[in-house]
Amino acid sequence: MATPTPTRQRRRGHDPESVLSIAVGVFNERGYDGTSMEDLARALGVTKSAIYYHVPGKEQLLGRALDRALDGLSEMVADERAASGPAIERLEWVVRQSVRILVDRLPYVTLLLRVRGNSRTEQAALKRRREFDAFISRLVKEAAAEGSIRPDMDPALVTRLLFGTVNSIADWYQPSRGGSSDDVADALLKMAFTGLRV
Amino acid sequence: MATPTPTRQRRRGHDPESVLSIAVGVFNERGYDGTSMEDLARALGVTKSAIYYHVPGKEQLLGRALDRALDGLSEMVADERAASGPAIERLEWVVRQSVRILVDRLPYVTLLLRVRGNSRTEQAALKRRREFDAFISRLVKEAAAEGSIRPDMDPALVTRLLFGTVNSIADWYQPSRGGSSDDVADALLKMAFTGLRV
Repeated sequence: MATPTPTRQRRRGHDPESVLSIAVGVFNERGYDGTSMEDLARALGVTKSAIYYHVPGKEQLLGRALDRALDGLSEMVADERAASGPAIERLEWVVRQSVRILVDRLPYVTLLLRVRGNSRTEQAALKRRREFDAFISRLVKEAAAEGSIRPDMDPALVTRLLFGTVNSIADWYQPSRGGSSDDVADALLKMAFTGLRV
Repeated sequence: MATPTPTRQRRRGHDPESVLSIAVGVFNERGYDGTSMEDLARALGVTKSAIYYHVPGKEQLLGRALDRALDGLSEMVADERAASGPAIERLEWVVRQSVRILVDRLPYVTLLLRVRGNSRTEQAALKRRREFDAFISRLVKEAAAEGSIRPDMDPALVTRLLFGTVNSIADWYQPSRGGSSDDVADALLKMAFTGLRV
């Protein structure tokens, strides 16, 4: 049997998961810096004092939300499929997986992509994001060294363009409009790896 | 002989062009909504009352800045090279030209890409941007109809991915780091049109 939710919490209708999800929506809409605890309380439908029952502070919510995006990327990097086999195939798997994470965790990844390093929490997130960028960069270089990427392409530029394309999905993807993450990943992989031209 | 700059203006060291350029820098750094006339005055090194000598208001500056980006796109759409010849070649020219405009007018295009429609000025800019998007969308469909794009690719998805890649350049391009707009455009066109894989 599941542990029963404490009565007070259940009565307000917010478990930690829904608090996080609502808060991330507000951060993305108003910008993190432009969001006050009052805005969060309003979105949750609780009084300003009750918000502190749900969450100690705004930055703690931000940290949890950014971890939600970054943990997805870390798990991917640690996966066997990112570690063995021809680099070009690992790269294609990583691109596909990145699209999946972006689509599955869209509001969290959107928030991550807007982080500029304005606080310790943001700096810690940027540090983790840079580790991921370095991982991708090494993978593209490996694929080039194995002769699987056109030799007239600069690997650093390839990395930026490829993950620029992945990240730009956050600007237009709407779950309601249809098109699964795999449809989008298929199209991106076809375009980038084999080209649009007949 | 050039018309002499009025003494007051010259003494303050700001012509309309430098006011616009400094203001756009502040908008991009703080966000347009987060920028006050006081922030602009500080960045220009003038008093808060003197700022109104340079510019009637924040939104007027925003409008001028967004036009700077949008006029580049409009000129491109009106160009002969966007109007005749095989659609796939026009599309490649339009992608190259879009990268050039983005790099040449980087702060203005960056500002445009962040517009969400919060005021009449922003709504007018979004309307012009949507016209450009519709133009691109038609061009991709034409190229598909002419049989120049892989038939297993959805033209709407191609349009989004292609211009997502172009727009994402604004997130990482740094003029100081080298790499001209043509280097970036060459790499993007190679990747998207002929593919990365050897």
